[in-house]
Formats: sequence, structure tokens, C-alpha cells
Amino acid sequence: MFKDKVLLDHGSGGLASQDLIRDIFLKHLDNPFLADLEDSAVIGEIGGRLVFTTDSYVVDPLFFPGGDIGSLSVYGTINDLAMRGASPVCLSLGFILEEGFALFDLERIVSSIARACEKAGVVVAAGDTKVVPRGKGDGIFINTSGLGFLAVDLNISASRARTGDQIILSGTLADHGITILTQRSGLELEGDFVSDSMPLHFLVRELGDFLGEGLHTLRDPTRGGLATSLCEIAGSSGVGITIEERALPVKPGVSSACEILGLDPLYIANEGKCLVLVEAGMADEALKIMRRRPEGRDAAIIGSVTGGSPDKVEMVTGIGGRRLITPLAGEPLPRIC
Amino acid sequence: MFKDKVLLDHGSGGLASQDLIRDIFLKHLDNPFLADLEDSAVIGEIGGRLVFTTDSYVVDPLFFPGGDIGSLSVYGTINDLAMRGASPVCLSLGFILEEGFALFDLERIVSSIARACEKAGVVVAAGDTKVVPRGKGDGIFINTSGLGFLAVDLNISASRARTGDQIILSGTLADHGITILTQRSGLELEGDFVSDSMPLHFLVRELGDFLGEGLHTLRDPTRGGLATSLCEIAGSSGVGITIEERALPVKPGVSSACEILGLDPLYIANEGKCLVLVEAGMADEALKIMRRRPEGRDAAIIGSVTGGSPDKVEMVTGIGGRRLITPLAGEPLPRIC
Repeated sequence: MFKDKVLLDHGSGGLASQDLIRDIFLKHLDNPFLADLEDSAVIGEIGGRLVFTTDSYVVDPLFFPGGDIGSLSVYGTINDLAMRGASPVCLSLGFILEEGFALFDLERIVSSIARACEKAGVVVAAGDTKVVPRGKGDGIFINTSGLGFLAVDLNISASRARTGDQIILSGTLADHGITILTQRSGLELEGDFVSDSMPLHFLVRELGDFLGEGLHTLRDPTRGGLATSLCEIAGSSGVGITIEERALPVKPGVSSACEILGLDPLYIANEGKCLVLVEAGMADEALKIMRRRPEGRDAAIIGSVTGGSPDKVEMVTGIGGRRLITPLAGEPLPRIC
Repeated sequence: MFKDKVLLDHGSGGLASQDLIRDIFLKHLDNPFLADLEDSAVIGEIGGRLVFTTDSYVVDPLFFPGGDIGSLSVYGTINDLAMRGASPVCLSLGFILEEGFALFDLERIVSSIARACEKAGVVVAAGDTKVVPRGKGDGIFINTSGLGFLAVDLNISASRARTGDQIILSGTLADHGITILTQRSGLELEGDFVSDSMPLHFLVRELGDFLGEGLHTLRDPTRGGLATSLCEIAGSSGVGITIEERALPVKPGVSSACEILGLDPLYIANEGKCLVLVEAGMADEALKIMRRRPEGRDAAIIGSVTGGSPDKVEMVTGIGGRRLITPLAGEPLPRIC
């Protein structure tokens, strides 16, 4: 019915739009919500407190080892929900396509979204497509909003870190950012670079079930990296934080790449990792739970919340010095997500 | 703190992002959900069935008589919720900014969003900002997802049109599309062109309260215009539809502009109008309710659902002929919303 490129007509709301919806979107994402083709989806009643989030994805390149803009847009939004302790229920997808974008690539992305949704147990309940003229966009941008619910009595927030809390990081640092960077730059570096993009809500659910109110804070260190996330938590909770450089899990290849490129892994984006702040006595058990799951296989206790110096994040360096950790100031890596 | 243009740093998730959030977004949109600065917003419990929708806005130009991309992005998403009978509760905003976009314009847009939200009685509960390099976007794109609930026992759908239903159009046709087109083309046409962009949920609520199950279908004829919306309803419900050309409200200036430009007002986008399909006996009362409100001042009964010719939409022309109405095929006006 249509050629191999996105046309302005595909964004018209007319017949070409209907073709695109049927031949690509519904083909991969069919479900009763979308099949309705209504202006909005009636989700029905949801028990518990609602949680709502939104994120746009402009990653460049669109395809990379470990994922693509499609899976990233599903997992990234799920993780924003998970960081409040919420179980994701449904997503919306807003596509902004550039005229001339290959329909083959669009379909690859949509089928990746479908697989990611299946893996994560969520459905796409609403969607929209706009097309902008050639040169006014960049292939494809995706906005993914997400709805979840807090079924149990969790109270997870960046403002709930308390003195004595132990800080667990769920896995190795900087995998996503360094993978994107090496792909984009065409640098041939030693090492097996794969994005860590993955959904974290199953891990969070297990932690929540076990820790309950003892689970204080969750944060996924995406843009701005670990350093910025820790500073945000310290600022929101009015506490000091100390981490141990030696305790930070980083893959050797990623560590060398950072050294060669002059980048600090503390500031590089992750897309499948989270910081977990728990009551002191519960940290060992939490760590055990995390390590049993693939998402938390490399989890480590990396530091703790300290009484003194509110809002201040310090790192005890590998050789025993102390370094003040500040939030990211400038953008080292644009379009990482 | 920052200069007068959007920088890549503003999308970094670091300090520049925080400045932008504080100095522009929170300044105009502050509320407890956003002030949290969490990854997602805990909305709490909502009574009734949830309704969810998403829409991206890429309108060109960004500012036009009767609105701008900001107010459009609020009302457009509210109207998608309203077309299922839902009352809007909260919105998310996803900004994709082009490096170099004027912060002055961004603030104008955000303050317009704030005014639109206040007028409509909704809050922005979640947000995200990405920045793409110069030449990879076009100033600003906005995705607005929306959450609403169906408090009463309404059952409104494009598939519920029934033989005998009367079809009411809430006001004059093609105002938004023609306004955008004249702005963009720089054509100096006679007439007072103003977008009809406005929220329709108050009108829908009054109709729902009165009509209950007698309110069958609502649709806002945006992209694709009245013709495409009618075809979608006829297709979803498997019914025939007949409308009367003479009954269609069109402003004289808009009508002349369409003639001069060779455009058919039936296919031009509206942003503050809706089609209302009601049980035959209730149409006069529904019309009265609509005309009492500013959104429905020019409402008119334009046709009815007929028994024969399922899926077929016909128009009785001004001189008494019959014209088959088909959905929009090609895009006459890209980036209208």
C-alpha cells in the first residue's frame, strides 16, 4: 500500500495513517486497547495508588548492542515507574517521525517494542504518530508515558534516605553510555560493550515484598550518572552520603574505555541499574535477593548515608583519599537516551 | 544563570537541566507532583475507570491567533480524554527542544501551558526534557499524555452509533486549520482567522450528566477533519451516515478562504469542536445544553445515522445532490497540530 519511506501523508490522520497503524503498529502491538482506534483508552479500574511518568527518547544511534530506541523507550519508562516502587500497567507511545525515515527501520523498532513489552508484562494502551518534513527531525523520536500502581504499602522516595541506610548499586556502571559513545564515535576499543538497558520492576517488586517500609529510596542513574543521582538523593533527604570507590562495580573494558576517553564512569548514563537505599540491618538480605536475579547479579553495597554534612556526597578513593562528588554540570554525551 | 538559548547541557540531567526546571518549568507549573522532582508522580487513588491517551504536537508556526503549541498541547490531549466521556485529572509533558531554541519562547509556551491547565482544571504531574543538536529538530516538539477517569456510567465510543441517532456538530468548521495555513503561507486573506483550540470536557460533562447512556459517540474532528471522523464512526459502528451541507456551520471568512485555496472545509482540522451522536429523542435537549455554553454556541444538528448503506457517509449538497464522503487520503496541511 505504501512505499518504503515515511511520508508526510502518514501523519495526516487519513488513509495513509490508517495503513501505517494497521501494517506496522497493530501488526506488532495489537491488543484490545489499541484495536479500538479510539482517541483514548479506557483502562478500567486499577487497585491501589496510581503512578504516572513520561520520558522522550532521542538516542543516537537508533540501534546499538543490547538494544535500540524501541526497547530503551519501554524499559526506561518502566524503570521510572519502578523507582517509586510501582508495578507498570500500561504505556503510551508518541512517535515523531521524519519524512523519509525507512519503514523497515520503523518496523524493526516497533517489533522491538512489542518484544520488550512482552518481556516486561506491559501493554501499549495509547499511541500517536506525527510526521515532520525532512530536515526538521532526526529519523525517529519516541515519547513513552507510563502508568503503574503501588499495590502494597511502599513509601519510596529520594527524600526518604536516613542516616545509617546502606546504599546498594544493582550492577556495573556506565555500560549504556560507553556503548552508545563507542558506537557513535566509531572508536575501535578493546572490550565487549553492551548496553545494560533492561526493566527493573521485577527486581523492585521482590525487594518491596521483602523490605516493605525498610526500602527507603530507589533511583536509576540514567542521564547525569551515579554521581548526579547520589547528589539528588542527598539534597532531597538532607543527608550526607559516603561511597567507596573500591566497591563500585565497573567492567574492565568500560573502565579502560573511560580512561582512554577521559570520561568519569560516575557521570555516565546507565539504563538498567538502580541505587537501593535500605535500613542498615536489612542490607545483607537485600543484597542476597538482588544477586539471585539477573538484573542484580553484580549488585554491591557501595556506601552509606552518614549523619554529618547534609547534602554532601563524598567518595573514599581507591588509595584512601576523599573526593567531593558534585552533580553533572555540562553534557558529556548528548542523546544517550 | 544560563544564556538566552537552549543548550545541549539543558538536556543533560545535570545542573543546567535543574536550572531549566527551576527557572522555567517549576516557575510556571509548580505543584506538589512536580516539586518532588522524582522519576514519576504518585497520583494516588482515583475513583472510577481510568482513561489514558497521548498526543505529540509539532504545529508550525508555534504561535498563532487563538493559541500556541503550549495551549494546543493541553487542550488537544484533554479533548482526546473528553471524547470518551472522561474528566481529565493530570497531564505529562515531554519536551524535545532543538539546541539554540530561544528560552524566551520556551517560557512563553510554558506560561501558556500553565494558563491552559488552570482554565481547564488539570495539573501537570510529570515531565521530561530532551535537547537535540541544531538541525536535528525544529525548535520545540511537545508530547502530552493525559489521564482521566470515567466517574459515571458513560459508554461512549465510535462503535456505539445507532440507526436514528442525531448528529450534532458543536460549532463552526475548519477554523484551526485555516488559521494555521494563512499564518504559515503569509497569505493576506479577508477574514478574522482565529484557531478554535479549546477544551471540551466541561461541555462533555454537562452532556453526559443529562444524556447518560443516550450519549453514544463523541469525536473531535482534528487531523482528517469532519469527513474522516464521520467515516471512522460509520466504519466502527457499521452504520450509514447522512449529513446536510446546508446545516454545516462555517464562518464566511473561512468559507471564502477555503474556496480561494481550493481546500474542502470537510477535511480541515478543528481543535475545539466535537461531533455528538445522541439518541433521536434527545437531540433537541442536547443542542440546548450545548448552545448555552461558549464551546457550543454555534452547535447545529448536521445529520443523522441511517439504516441503509453500512459504512457509507453521504452529504446532501446545498443544491440537493448527494455526494459520497470518503476519508482523507493525502495530507493537505502538514504540521497542523
